[in-house]
Amino acid sequence: MSIDITISEVGPRDGLQSIERIMPTAAKCAWISAQFAAGTPEIEVGSFVPPKLLPQMADAAEVVAHARTLEGLTVATLVPNLRGLERAVAAGAHKVSIPFSMSETHSLRNVRKNHAEMLAEIGRCVAFLDTVPDAERPRFEVGLSTAFGCTIEGPVPESRVIAMAERVTALGADEVGLSDTTGYGNPVQLRRLAEGIWSACGRHMLNGVHLHNTRGQGLANALMAVELGFTTLDSSLGGLGGCPWAPGASGNIVTEDLVWMLEAMGLRTGIDLERLLAVRAILQEALPGEPLYGFVADAGIPKGVGPVG
Amino acid sequence: MSIDITISEVGPRDGLQSIERIMPTAAKCAWISAQFAAGTPEIEVGSFVPPKLLPQMADAAEVVAHARTLEGLTVATLVPNLRGLERAVAAGAHKVSIPFSMSETHSLRNVRKNHAEMLAEIGRCVAFLDTVPDAERPRFEVGLSTAFGCTIEGPVPESRVIAMAERVTALGADEVGLSDTTGYGNPVQLRRLAEGIWSACGRHMLNGVHLHNTRGQGLANALMAVELGFTTLDSSLGGLGGCPWAPGASGNIVTEDLVWMLEAMGLRTGIDLERLLAVRAILQEALPGEPLYGFVADAGIPKGVGPVG
Repeated sequence: MSIDITISEVGPRDGLQSIERIMPTAAKCAWISAQFAAGTPEIEVGSFVPPKLLPQMADAAEVVAHARTLEGLTVATLVPNLRGLERAVAAGAHKVSIPFSMSETHSLRNVRKNHAEMLAEIGRCVAFLDTVPDAERPRFEVGLSTAFGCTIEGPVPESRVIAMAERVTALGADEVGLSDTTGYGNPVQLRRLAEGIWSACGRHMLNGVHLHNTRGQGLANALMAVELGFTTLDSSLGGLGGCPWAPGASGNIVTEDLVWMLEAMGLRTGIDLERLLAVRAILQEALPGEPLYGFVADAGIPKGVGPVG
Repeated sequence: MSIDITISEVGPRDGLQSIERIMPTAAKCAWISAQFAAGTPEIEVGSFVPPKLLPQMADAAEVVAHARTLEGLTVATLVPNLRGLERAVAAGAHKVSIPFSMSETHSLRNVRKNHAEMLAEIGRCVAFLDTVPDAERPRFEVGLSTAFGCTIEGPVPESRVIAMAERVTALGADEVGLSDTTGYGNPVQLRRLAEGIWSACGRHMLNGVHLHNTRGQGLANALMAVELGFTTLDSSLGGLGGCPWAPGASGNIVTEDLVWMLEAMGLRTGIDLERLLAVRAILQEALPGEPLYGFVADAGIPKGVGPVG
């Protein structure tokens, strides 16, 4: 079946990274398998950060290896730097994102690099990927995080985000993504940023958004994204996760709610909502007591979704 | 200050009607005054239903009388029938809505009238209003409730909603409104319904929507509404309320979250968000333990809302 919108499930990475308790590797793999079976086309399965900094992600290579056995799944991962990228390539990730915080203060706190140092690191990543055989080379995306504002710096100038997207494009990244790390974004801001980046870098350079629902605006921003023509939207099963380094920034978009809205609008995600809702049980069993969110999970799927003449 | 979008606060009616505990009249009046002081231009202050059916609304006339002392406030009320309309006019309401359920099953359960009987009642309401002196005549809106689907009947044919809007227009109502009573609506459906009604009845006949957030889609639908050119959006402080006769239908849009989104988008609501958030204390004091919702209340107003160059 062809799909209109690719939902990239980020729960196993963005969701879990903000949880202290380690989810056993087997449970992660069961989650990923179940969510793939429900029709999820892309899953961000882990992060290649130093295990001592984030023990939750120590098994990233094992999880990638499992995810690669699921035929048709795009296996995405996050890396903080060249060292992580090397590990991701060795593990066999199909897609790698490196977050590049538009707030320099946040960047320094998060990865201890200023903007010049991050641009240099991205350049080294591209140079390394040039040495990787085509068959093993993942797609390389730079995630423009805190693009909508920063809990530490406050507003982030849009001109800076656009300028950084241009620099990253010139360095040879395959794509940039817009990340509302802090849940500050609004639909008009998303449109301005997207149009600015498309105009500066070319339409092909930006196709994905990572939105949060911190102020309840996640699905409104998602609606604007699909209206603008974005084709990949990140979300998290049960709304698990946030960014532990951006204080007060919590609340990924809930995958179940996003699927419901898009499918009700007639946009195909390839995901079976009832099977997706059933995947929550795996999280509940592996992380007992961990709060899971979701309006559709609470209210149920409406009788006979979709319009009638 | 001129405003772009009129937020019609429905908490004192839609919110309270689903709560068993009676809120004292003085507390209702304090709430309405405080929310007006925060800049809310229109408030649905009560419902003229038979007091024995809904004791919470027994003081509707007193509350209208108080609200009318707030200069500049549009005092809106709900009525189930002609008898209620007579009471609303006698009390001095500026705007009166009568809900007309597009699901005949829901209509029968809610007001014990089928569609033909409801149309006849609406006709009697218009005939009565023709006898009311201009200075005392409220604006008369027919709220097309369950327009997006019904928890009992399931999907509601869009052709039926449009046909009923035409009938109501022909009967002489001033306006119709679209109500997602059950929280089934999605943005594409809203667009189709709005365009259908505008085409059938004229652009001036439909300007307001009453949206719910039952499946998390409330603000996405609100975004679509403002993009389409709707100028009045209903919402409820703290997300209080729902419809007690539509099982599982809960969750008005949260006024605070709606204000935040619209203002961040550069649309003026006239409402001061910090003062609005402070009004929640009145609800908390008058209805201790009653759950109040809201992402902005939980997460806080972002540092320096709005864009920078």
